[in-house]
Amino acid sequence: MTHLVSGQDHPGLILTPSAVREMNSAQAPLFEKSLQEVVDEVAVEMQKGIDVPVPKDLAGGYTHETHKRNFFTMQKAGVLFQITGDEKYAVYIRDMLLQYARIYPTLGKHPATRSYARGKFFWQCLNDANWLVYTSQAYDCIYDWLDKQTVKKLNKELFRPYAEYISIQNPQFFNRIHNHSTWGNAAVGMIGLVMQDAELVNWALYGLDVDDLHQQEKDNDGGSLDLKTQGEAGFIAQIDHSFSPDGYFTEGPYYQRYAMYPFLIFAQALANKKPDLDILKYRDRLLIKAVYALINQTNGLGEFFPFNDAQKGMSLASRELVNAVSMAYFFGDQDPSLLSIIEKQDRVPLNDAGLSAASAIAQGLSQPFDYKSLELSDGAKGDEGGIGILRADDMTLVMKYAKHGMGHGHFDRLGFMLYDGGDEVIQDYGSARWVNIDHKDGGGYLKENHSWAKETIAHNTLVVNKDSHFDGNVQAADLTSGTRYSFTSTDSVSIVSAREENAYKDVKMQRTMALLTIEELERPLVLDLLTVQAPMETRYDLPLYYQGELMSVNQQIEANTTLSPMGQESGYQHLWAEGQAAVNGDMFQMTWFNGKHFYTVTSATTEGDEMIFTRIGANDLKFNLRRDPGLIQRRVGGNTVFASVYETHGFYSYSDEIPLNSFTSISDLSVDHNSEGYVVAAIELTSGKVYRFAFSLKDNDPNHEHSVETSKGEIKWKGIYDFKRK
Amino acid sequence: MTHLVSGQDHPGLILTPSAVREMNSAQAPLFEKSLQEVVDEVAVEMQKGIDVPVPKDLAGGYTHETHKRNFFTMQKAGVLFQITGDEKYAVYIRDMLLQYARIYPTLGKHPATRSYARGKFFWQCLNDANWLVYTSQAYDCIYDWLDKQTVKKLNKELFRPYAEYISIQNPQFFNRIHNHSTWGNAAVGMIGLVMQDAELVNWALYGLDVDDLHQQEKDNDGGSLDLKTQGEAGFIAQIDHSFSPDGYFTEGPYYQRYAMYPFLIFAQALANKKPDLDILKYRDRLLIKAVYALINQTNGLGEFFPFNDAQKGMSLASRELVNAVSMAYFFGDQDPSLLSIIEKQDRVPLNDAGLSAASAIAQGLSQPFDYKSLELSDGAKGDEGGIGILRADDMTLVMKYAKHGMGHGHFDRLGFMLYDGGDEVIQDYGSARWVNIDHKDGGGYLKENHSWAKETIAHNTLVVNKDSHFDGNVQAADLTSGTRYSFTSTDSVSIVSAREENAYKDVKMQRTMALLTIEELERPLVLDLLTVQAPMETRYDLPLYYQGELMSVNQQIEANTTLSPMGQESGYQHLWAEGQAAVNGDMFQMTWFNGKHFYTVTSATTEGDEMIFTRIGANDLKFNLRRDPGLIQRRVGGNTVFASVYETHGFYSYSDEIPLNSFTSISDLSVDHNSEGYVVAAIELTSGKVYRFAFSLKDNDPNHEHSVETSKGEIKWKGIYDFKRK
Repeated sequence: MTHLVSGQDHPGLILTPSAVREMNSAQAPLFEKSLQEVVDEVAVEMQKGIDVPVPKDLAGGYTHETHKRNFFTMQKAGVLFQITGDEKYAVYIRDMLLQYARIYPTLGKHPATRSYARGKFFWQCLNDANWLVYTSQAYDCIYDWLDKQTVKKLNKELFRPYAEYISIQNPQFFNRIHNHSTWGNAAVGMIGLVMQDAELVNWALYGLDVDDLHQQEKDNDGGSLDLKTQGEAGFIAQIDHSFSPDGYFTEGPYYQRYAMYPFLIFAQALANKKPDLDILKYRDRLLIKAVYALINQTNGLGEFFPFNDAQKGMSLASRELVNAVSMAYFFGDQDPSLLSIIEKQDRVPLNDAGLSAASAIAQGLSQPFDYKSLELSDGAKGDEGGIGILRADDMTLVMKYAKHGMGHGHFDRLGFMLYDGGDEVIQDYGSARWVNIDHKDGGGYLKENHSWAKETIAHNTLVVNKDSHFDGNVQAADLTSGTRYSFTSTDSVSIVSAREENAYKDVKMQRTMALLTIEELERPLVLDLLTVQAPMETRYDLPLYYQGELMSVNQQIEANTTLSPMGQESGYQHLWAEGQAAVNGDMFQMTWFNGKHFYTVTSATTEGDEMIFTRIGANDLKFNLRRDPGLIQRRVGGNTVFASVYETHGFYSYSDEIPLNSFTSISDLSVDHNSEGYVVAAIELTSGKVYRFAFSLKDNDPNHEHSVETSKGEIKWKGIYDFKRK
Repeated sequence: MTHLVSGQDHPGLILTPSAVREMNSAQAPLFEKSLQEVVDEVAVEMQKGIDVPVPKDLAGGYTHETHKRNFFTMQKAGVLFQITGDEKYAVYIRDMLLQYARIYPTLGKHPATRSYARGKFFWQCLNDANWLVYTSQAYDCIYDWLDKQTVKKLNKELFRPYAEYISIQNPQFFNRIHNHSTWGNAAVGMIGLVMQDAELVNWALYGLDVDDLHQQEKDNDGGSLDLKTQGEAGFIAQIDHSFSPDGYFTEGPYYQRYAMYPFLIFAQALANKKPDLDILKYRDRLLIKAVYALINQTNGLGEFFPFNDAQKGMSLASRELVNAVSMAYFFGDQDPSLLSIIEKQDRVPLNDAGLSAASAIAQGLSQPFDYKSLELSDGAKGDEGGIGILRADDMTLVMKYAKHGMGHGHFDRLGFMLYDGGDEVIQDYGSARWVNIDHKDGGGYLKENHSWAKETIAHNTLVVNKDSHFDGNVQAADLTSGTRYSFTSTDSVSIVSAREENAYKDVKMQRTMALLTIEELERPLVLDLLTVQAPMETRYDLPLYYQGELMSVNQQIEANTTLSPMGQESGYQHLWAEGQAAVNGDMFQMTWFNGKHFYTVTSATTEGDEMIFTRIGANDLKFNLRRDPGLIQRRVGGNTVFASVYETHGFYSYSDEIPLNSFTSISDLSVDHNSEGYVVAAIELTSGKVYRFAFSLKDNDPNHEHSVETSKGEIKWKGIYDFKRK
């Protein structure tokens, strides 16, 4: 391999001359493997020849996907040029850029009119910004290799006008606190660093000096276009406002993953080119913390919790996280537990961070990541709710009481999901969208995302009077967050409890979920106590979206011989009721099987309760929704509590056909006390043992003492909760 | 480790003294690992103590599962005693056997009355035979270690009466040609070999001398109790009649897997104790061939094709196949391609065969198994239909035109299923049963197995006038088989074609399926031509049970706002129609996605055709059926052809969200000729290229020349088929 001479200004964004030298001498098989994969990928693309078509299509369409492939390939080719010194890569990038420079001045706005901020090569400025974030890296890699004439031409005819278009010409895109703007800021800043254009870098860091240039009031997701003035927008302000102090991103992990790439790649460039900013230490090392927050928001397969708008299956394997985790390793504390995640990713970015991680792995430094029970606060100050993550054994429970999450939020206050390793036990639907798949309305959000996926009935949380939280109004939901009440975690008991008092008028809800390890049981139990203060005759629907095949129910199911939609709106129009059971105060139990393990829900019921067995799929002309099952506990009443236990048990494999422990170990669940101040529940096991859980709903002082009269006598305890065998 | 002295009569069934010596000196990590696993499993069971409860429960219940665990554990403990010499294993077996001997004389028939042949420890003799097949191995291992008094007691008070009970006292169980009888024969024969009881061995090999002792006419699966006289029944007769010359078992691979264990384990014992029989060479090495037949009847995950009554997921990983594949290696030709399957099984049986395989793997001899397109004939003489397996790339198609398969058969003549690696593309439902899972009616067949899973509409084959093949009558179906027409396989074209003329009165069907590799396409195509001769106004329903999420359809779907069952009987009572499209002679295309790849069906339609989008689950009070989707092509007419192409294309991953090749490459499919003698179809690609497939339906002589007038002019070819680019 030949090396480029050093002492130059470029590359300087994500590759540095000294790092390139090290790459050529390192003993790091994972880096070599990643390099070879990129060599192969780029070879395939280069063999196809250069194609810069006139923009026409939406996401998923030919011109969209081609321009997208182009920027990915240019970025990779740039790195390969630096590492291998093979000029064919530089020539490829130059020739492609010249084609972009030729076509760019001829373009108006993209012909598709769907976006609040139309791009030129793509239907939205967001994708144009994606292009520039990647392409500026490629340009950086060949900048010193290009003749001055070409540089001048590209700067003037392509890059500067391109950067202006997505900034000053579209402030409604550039000057917000929003993941779209983060991409815009990074794009403009990175090309500014390459071109040494201080004005662009300044816009990128601190925003534009605009006052009220917007003509539209909402973006395509229903988020408000609240434009900022200079200093209140730009990259630094994004870091200030986009994350909580714990690194939680209010739109949720799916969008955080997407936003992290521009945050981290621009930060990396700034660390190299403007080290005085010390961007990676900014706000108590917020950007590194944000990577840890993402890692903590995953199931046993590394897939992100799919709350808010999120396509399921997005995971730590994504290209964004491949970059992010190595970067957190390199620019953070060289935490060896990140290396085990990088090993699972099975590739590293071709930069200093990736090399460093791969070398450390080669030295055997990797250690397992310690997934713990923890709470992530929401809000820039950390005081606007959050999410609680409970983990024990292979079980992971996450409950959400965060902010709404703006245009991508779902009406799911106090909702939860439960995993067994990587398997969904109780699922969140995620978004109704097939990202980038043209078959499905161009790969964008489907109309069922609004009519079903965002609605409260699509989530594992309480629906009052068949209407969604906040009456389905994003602006109203954005005004408040859920309220953290307590979070506690010991070896055997983890509890999260939070309140929601704004979602419905005159209704106060508090949900308390506990993950309990009981010696005599195979796996931890989940206890779920949802207490409600509301007027008499309030109608409640509490759904449970279990995943798997129903094994048995302890009550008689009345099956419906014809099916009709369960309602007209708020998501009910997409549900069939396959059957129902009038439980009338009896204990309800249902066991299901997910292909490996058995799960049993045990619910206390009250007189008049009904259990409805639902199926998603009504009014779904285009088969946009999955036909997943659900169970709705329906009750009419005033102040009340919904109490359930979710048990994981047993095992069965289709190749040996020997079921182990396929029956629940719970014989009864009773609510022994329920008032505004306290809730007490008792879990009786088939062994005859009884475990009692008592919880103080209004006083979370760990030192206060409580005394409550229950249906089984008076009990006393100290602190927020008491869990013991009776 | 201490070794037992040799020169003894025992062990002699599946372990021999010389093999035991080798086991203690071998360098075979897989054997060591398998040994350690068994040591651990047995330790867990021994720690629980001995439990021999009074029989009471059905499958899945406590006493059933305990007795089952007992025999598995005793067999393993016996092997461990031989290999390790540790007497604790012998003591454990002896003590358990004495408990069985104590309880046995007190038992009448099992209290559950469901079986045509009730057992003593289990509800059916079949399970009692299972017990004896395993326990006789354990007894063999400790026979020489036991004092004579104990041997005498066990032989007289437990084993001889036990063997008599499942043979001469239940000839309706023992003296048939059926997998139940195979278990009975092996059980009685194996204990006979251990006890050196020539009478038992004789019964086992040649059957009982009974004439007509049966009181019932059918077994529990609806199979007839056709008892045999001596020489027509017994183990040798089972080998003669249970398999085709290709090793195919008429009940299908799920039951073949179950039956193979007694066939092979008894054969192994006979090879050791009665080498003069040369049982493994019998009938042109039929038993070894049968293992290959099983291996060939699997998808990319090693799971058996689930036709007839079969629980999906049963696979080469099962305990029966762990024994069978190692045995086929050892007693066959030491075929190195079997070793790669054993590596995937990741364990070997603790006997000579397992040791031999593990040693060969340790020596690096393993080679990939070559899964090829092939046909397996059915019928003892190989002339009663069969199944055709077409393979190319990762695609596997299997079409069935075999015998019905007796009580476990489904009404699925000319049905097919299609796999992409281990993924179902077009599925067979399998059985409606959760084997051994007590929640589901004791783990036995559910009533929906009859009302849905066996019915023709549950399969990917033609339903005429809404009635199942043979009007759902097993006896009628057993009288005939499908008729093989041709099977051919080259590098780029594999074709199977078969006829069915008995399933419906006055209706002659022939299905021709081809797996076609076309250079310009990413993956092979499946062409499906189902030609029918029938009276005018015949009503046809042709279902397609695709697996995955529907992406798009090229016709307008009319969604149903309320759902009703599609009929009253023949399986239609379990189907909802979610929507329909009136296709009226237009080409129909539907694309679906299974989480990795895209699949598109393209169907030619005729005036009046309707496509119905179905969902399983109506009239399913106990949620016994999976809510899987289906597509039914409905037509009313006389002589006709159903022509479709199934295309596999593209890729999409949820973690990178970049769809590749998500659209079909087929732009049209036309039927250019259809008569009793010929069918000609043309596949047009989006590239504009047209491929024509011509097939002679009545003359399969490869040397004959054909000339046909098509809608696009006259064509000529030589041989059964012609496939070429026009």
